[in-house]
Amino acid sequence: DETLREKIQLEQRFKSIGIVSARTGGGTHAMAADTAVKATNTEIALIELCRDTKGGAGHGITVIFASEDVMDSRRAVEIMLEELQGCFGNVYTCDAGHVEVHYTARASYALNQSFDAPLGKAFGITVGAPAAVGMIMADVAMKTANVEMNKFASSTHGTCFTNEIIITFSGDADAVKQSLVAAREAGLSVLRGMGQNPIPMGEPTW
Amino acid sequence: DETLREKIQLEQRFKSIGIVSARTGGGTHAMAADTAVKATNTEIALIELCRDTKGGAGHGITVIFASEDVMDSRRAVEIMLEELQGCFGNVYTCDAGHVEVHYTARASYALNQSFDAPLGKAFGITVGAPAAVGMIMADVAMKTANVEMNKFASSTHGTCFTNEIIITFSGDADAVKQSLVAAREAGLSVLRGMGQNPIPMGEPTW
Amino acid sequence: DETLREKIQLEQRFKSIGIVSARTGGGTHAMAADTAVKATNTEIALIELCRDTKGGAGHGITVIFASEDVMDSRRAVEIMLEELQGCFGNVYTCDAGHVEVHYTARASYALNQSFDAPLGKAFGITVGAPAAVGMIMADVAMKTANVEMNKFASSTHGTCFTNEIIITFSGDADAVKQSLVAAREAGLSVLRGMGQNPIPMGEPTW
Repeated sequence: DETLREKIQLEQRFKSIGIVSARTGGGTHAMAADTAVKATNTEIALIELCRDTKGGAGHGITVIFASEDVMDSRRAVEIMLEELQGCFGNVYTCDAGHVEVHYTARASYALNQSFDAPLGKAFGITVGAPAAVGMIMADVAMKTANVEMNKFASSTHGTCFTNEIIITFSGDADAVKQSLVAAREAGLSVLRGMGQNPIPMGEPTW
Repeated sequence: DETLREKIQLEQRFKSIGIVSARTGGGTHAMAADTAVKATNTEIALIELCRDTKGGAGHGITVIFASEDVMDSRRAVEIMLEELQGCFGNVYTCDAGHVEVHYTARASYALNQSFDAPLGKAFGITVGAPAAVGMIMADVAMKTANVEMNKFASSTHGTCFTNEIIITFSGDADAVKQSLVAAREAGLSVLRGMGQNPIPMGEPTW
Repeated sequence: DETLREKIQLEQRFKSIGIVSARTGGGTHAMAADTAVKATNTEIALIELCRDTKGGAGHGITVIFASEDVMDSRRAVEIMLEELQGCFGNVYTCDAGHVEVHYTARASYALNQSFDAPLGKAFGITVGAPAAVGMIMADVAMKTANVEMNKFASSTHGTCFTNEIIITFSGDADAVKQSLVAAREAGLSVLRGMGQNPIPMGEPTW
């Protein structure tokens, strides 16, 4: 519809859109959407995090892909869903909170719009909940290797009032990876120190 | 109290207020409040949605009626509560999310303040959660009949960060009703396509 | 890390920080943090409420203490945790919502930053959820004794979209206490009138 098209500021040349919403795993879905937008002839028409209640302390998300050809939007949705399983590999949850780290060798439009990623660079995200966990992860990540911080989000700035501290950073692929591994370890130690057993939601591959 | 009166900007002529809060069913309660304000000599002093956690993906709400005569505020609260059951007739919920459609033949102040309804016109609301469901409902509603969109709300604009897309529209009574019926069907199909069984919270009468 | 230090606007002279996050009991933790900041040589670097989901209708919170000497931040965290139990004495919860009142004879920086408390004065907070309960508590508190309102927060102004109405006020110690006791009674009556049995989360000492 035309009014709806204006509301989401969708250009006329796009004939088709593909939509994915999720009630949990905001960051994870943004990563998968980024892979999908790189692999297809689509653009991100809208990407919005939300304060859902299924995710405990975290975000839900909605992504709308737009394309001139209907096949591209459809393909983007398929790729995003295929990628998801892998992206959940480094999301660890427990009753007290969660720890997430995300890595891409080359950030694209979905991460640019949702997490301030510089286009084409190696890029990482650390998320910790409750927020104190995220703060410690952020500190460890920044001290571990030579990376540049792109975003800092806390409960009242840059999140949807979630009990999280999130940072994103970019740099050399090795530096970003190193920072993420150290931040993940630091976050998991804090949660374990609280007597918790954080379980990965997928198969961690690094 | 006088300070409190200033905080909610309540005029001096109002001697009495009536308050209703709900932890779920924001839109539904707004509809019932609208009927109450039409039926009594009251005004809406405050109507605020919130991001409660009992409603799953949706909103809670608080409504304050104000009146010069205490009987009017009391009557407004009573009517609002009587109306509620009917208003829940078109609220369908399931584990994955929910679909709501609301209709009034003549919108009044409660809907004007909370959902941008033009006063005195036939008016409808579609709500879908997660947001992708609401987007499809919005598109179907706008394409089905000749209605004018009054509000478009998504996770980060116009909602309390809920995982919903909500639109409101007005027009001829028949057109509004037709759009709502089509949007409800579209939203329910998506949820059913996900293997869900959305259950109405009341008795749908249309 | 230096970038992180800038993001939370932490002055160079602070060599150490101590962090506490909680998923429930925002107001309660702010009270305990206030006692800790008064008892130690620390400042509040950051205090942020959030819309967590563990607290039902209420807030979570994050507090960061900063100090020049690492022992002070550590001590502040310890004191805050010791104080908590007492602060929960006047937090009553039930399925329908909750009622909280908080009192300090002398407000300090944590309450100043998070709840607009005037420094050094007797200070009280009333919280009621759902919001209608908080509104009645606010009205009773303001009418009971000669206190000055410092903050009024509702679902869409000054809270993180919670289903609460919160007020804070200051004045003579006796007046503040009297208003809190009356507001607590009023809030509990409303919840009991709904057939609920609100249970204190600690041992109420007044």
